[in-house]
Amino acid sequence: MREKLISPAEDFSEWYIQVIQRAELADYSPVRGCMVIRPYGYAIWENIQQSLDRRFKETGHQNAYFPLFIPYSFIQKESQHIEGFAPQLAIVTHGGGKELEEPLVVRPTSETIIGYMYSQWIRSYRDLPLLINQWCNVVRWELRTRPFLRTMEFLWQEGHTAHATYEEAEEETLRMLNIYRDFAENDAAIPVILGKKSESEKFAGALHTYTMEAMMGNKWALQAATSHNLGQNFAKAFEIRYLDRNNQLQYCWTTSWGLSTRFIGAIVMVHGDEKGLKLPPKLAPIQVIIVPIWKSDEEKEKVLARIEELKPQLKAFRVKVDDREEYTPGWKFHEWELRGVPLRVEIGPRDVETGQVVLARRDTGEKWAVSTDDLGSKIEKALEEIHANLFQMAKKFRDENTFRLNDYNEFKRLMESDGGFVIAPWCESPECEKAIQEETKATIRCIPFEQDGQPDRCIYCGKETTLKALFARAF
Amino acid sequence: MREKLISPAEDFSEWYIQVIQRAELADYSPVRGCMVIRPYGYAIWENIQQSLDRRFKETGHQNAYFPLFIPYSFIQKESQHIEGFAPQLAIVTHGGGKELEEPLVVRPTSETIIGYMYSQWIRSYRDLPLLINQWCNVVRWELRTRPFLRTMEFLWQEGHTAHATYEEAEEETLRMLNIYRDFAENDAAIPVILGKKSESEKFAGALHTYTMEAMMGNKWALQAATSHNLGQNFAKAFEIRYLDRNNQLQYCWTTSWGLSTRFIGAIVMVHGDEKGLKLPPKLAPIQVIIVPIWKSDEEKEKVLARIEELKPQLKAFRVKVDDREEYTPGWKFHEWELRGVPLRVEIGPRDVETGQVVLARRDTGEKWAVSTDDLGSKIEKALEEIHANLFQMAKKFRDENTFRLNDYNEFKRLMESDGGFVIAPWCESPECEKAIQEETKATIRCIPFEQDGQPDRCIYCGKETTLKALFARAF
Repeated sequence: MREKLISPAEDFSEWYIQVIQRAELADYSPVRGCMVIRPYGYAIWENIQQSLDRRFKETGHQNAYFPLFIPYSFIQKESQHIEGFAPQLAIVTHGGGKELEEPLVVRPTSETIIGYMYSQWIRSYRDLPLLINQWCNVVRWELRTRPFLRTMEFLWQEGHTAHATYEEAEEETLRMLNIYRDFAENDAAIPVILGKKSESEKFAGALHTYTMEAMMGNKWALQAATSHNLGQNFAKAFEIRYLDRNNQLQYCWTTSWGLSTRFIGAIVMVHGDEKGLKLPPKLAPIQVIIVPIWKSDEEKEKVLARIEELKPQLKAFRVKVDDREEYTPGWKFHEWELRGVPLRVEIGPRDVETGQVVLARRDTGEKWAVSTDDLGSKIEKALEEIHANLFQMAKKFRDENTFRLNDYNEFKRLMESDGGFVIAPWCESPECEKAIQEETKATIRCIPFEQDGQPDRCIYCGKETTLKALFARAF
Repeated sequence: MREKLISPAEDFSEWYIQVIQRAELADYSPVRGCMVIRPYGYAIWENIQQSLDRRFKETGHQNAYFPLFIPYSFIQKESQHIEGFAPQLAIVTHGGGKELEEPLVVRPTSETIIGYMYSQWIRSYRDLPLLINQWCNVVRWELRTRPFLRTMEFLWQEGHTAHATYEEAEEETLRMLNIYRDFAENDAAIPVILGKKSESEKFAGALHTYTMEAMMGNKWALQAATSHNLGQNFAKAFEIRYLDRNNQLQYCWTTSWGLSTRFIGAIVMVHGDEKGLKLPPKLAPIQVIIVPIWKSDEEKEKVLARIEELKPQLKAFRVKVDDREEYTPGWKFHEWELRGVPLRVEIGPRDVETGQVVLARRDTGEKWAVSTDDLGSKIEKALEEIHANLFQMAKKFRDENTFRLNDYNEFKRLMESDGGFVIAPWCESPECEKAIQEETKATIRCIPFEQDGQPDRCIYCGKETTLKALFARAF
């Protein structure tokens, strides 16, 4: 008998760690701050990669690969960039048995090395836009780490594009943010809020940063993806220039945008419950788990033969049959609930006789018998319903825990008690932002694109403003 | 007008570099020994990944991800392993602004860190076999580098498996070698020779290493993939043990196997010619290049409209239409020949009227007109023929340049003049192997599985032996 999972209501952090480990998504490694992504967790990442990569390619992006190592002098070329990243760098000082003349930085992000290459490749307006994406690992030294959410090394994609004008770069920055939204909502069943980061939260070196924020099961926010309009900052640092139609040399406008293995943490924390993971069907490594039920070898043979017969109907899905001898059906039910498989098919000897199976939904716990006629369509429909329900439940939870406030005492009380998302007027001053953070631990997650534009007063200083920001505690 | 490509017969090395750069497969980077894989080159890698990954998954392997950094002490645990890899390590000594207590090695290969994790995960015979693969980057410090063939950082897959018995490990080692062969022959159109590495050429830490060797256009060999039976060496160094059915603690038997971006170099050097790349259809990023031909805007409109009509017939292929205004059709023909696209479709205004197009094969240069009825099947057939012909041409070239010798003077003369593969009797002594290498620059590529078993005398020392080895100069 397994030890019971701690309830997320009791200790959300501990629940998160237990789920990750017991569902075998990831494990601690002997390297401080680095995790091992186990096959089940990596299969989720592969599905995320496919979902995003398809969207990137449909919008004209190509993949490429740039070096892991970046000369230290490159990282220093854009002044805000080095300021932001200096404390997080891992540095290679020795190679091939010798001390290096110039230390190499293990990439924390690749704007600098890619910027340098773009300066070699881009000559004229005909070379623009240049739309490249890279799937890779990056390293950022972190003191406090948590599997998927914050690790020293993580996997991600980083898109890097160059354009002729500010407008085109801005359009690209927003296009990619919307691609992330489309992916989050339609593949991961995660409702998100899009908006702009405040100056203090923007990417080191960006003109401005857009973000996609989601509410986790403990009402904290998670930044699930970002998209940066880098203006001409990196173009000037790396001389990324092009000859325009009038033969004039112009600096390019560049963007970058990324989504990482952190997103797996979001999936765990948005959908999971006291039984464990609940995976959205489109990203689940196993969409349908078939648990055969038998009491004798004869029954076993009969049930497994029936499953073989049904398989052609299930080709469109990622299916696994758990025919292990050493565990009871009940044990298997729990196991696959913990691991978040969206739909279970139970089949025993009587089901074989009556030509039916029992379906069980992970999201609602609902169980019902269906005839095996046209089983594929029934499963497809169930998976669609599960996706829609996961999204609706997450959205309902978020909406119920989002508060439009204009009283700072109420804000403070909320943050001290239940927490949640707060939409409140803000005067755009970094001082108010900082004071609020110090007093409530809530940070500005973004200035949502959706604004009512009504005149109001800053929730902290009372100054007139029409802007509302989204505040929350965040991972 | 472009500068002409150097002929491979004139200077094979320079031809290789020119092809890589002009076809935009890769570029030099500002980091010594590291290259940038450009979109066209990376797209070949993506196709290689898909081809292999499918085969790995069909044989029960799962992907996972292990840390980039390995504690220095881990690398030292297996004595042959550290001896082999010590001169090639890149070492991180500083992180987060501080000097590290224990330096971290940037993985040159992952037997050690994966071995450690396996020791945590494997408890009983029920956990075996454990079949995991990782797609990642690795770093090996190199003094002399060459794009794809030998770079400081490269991309690869490394499979790592653990088994209950020697026999099962051996079976896995050979299974994966055969998967590489299947991929090389059927997807890359590269004929290969399988065999065992000599003791001096085996992987540092392996019991024995199997290899897949191919002949390049200059008659040198390239090691295109390897598969290692690691015996219990890493199991003992990392305590990878399991309880057998009798409840006895046993050491596991492990394997590892890998294929890297180096394989792209093999594709270039096996198939390429004086016009540039020739890509095997199954791995080509663009399988069919359509070049419209027009002399007026009216003609242009007509031809492009026809191409749109034909597109539904071409859905099964990776197709690109080169409708750029600024280049002539002739320029485009050369461009896509240089970039190795297997099949070209030319279509002009008269073709539209007569309901035909012209097909042109990159491999033979053959051009012929076909009616557009059932165009998809015609293209499919042409691509199949191109694949078969590429394979046959490469095999013919290799066979014509493979010599069965038993006279050492002949061997030396061959290596001093035309070169090639030599199959010759060898007594298994490392001294003969070393002397031959020093005198001829030819190394033992492998002891081919195919042996005639006839008694003979070592080509160097004359000692009796029934073994024949494959000798060649190698990249």
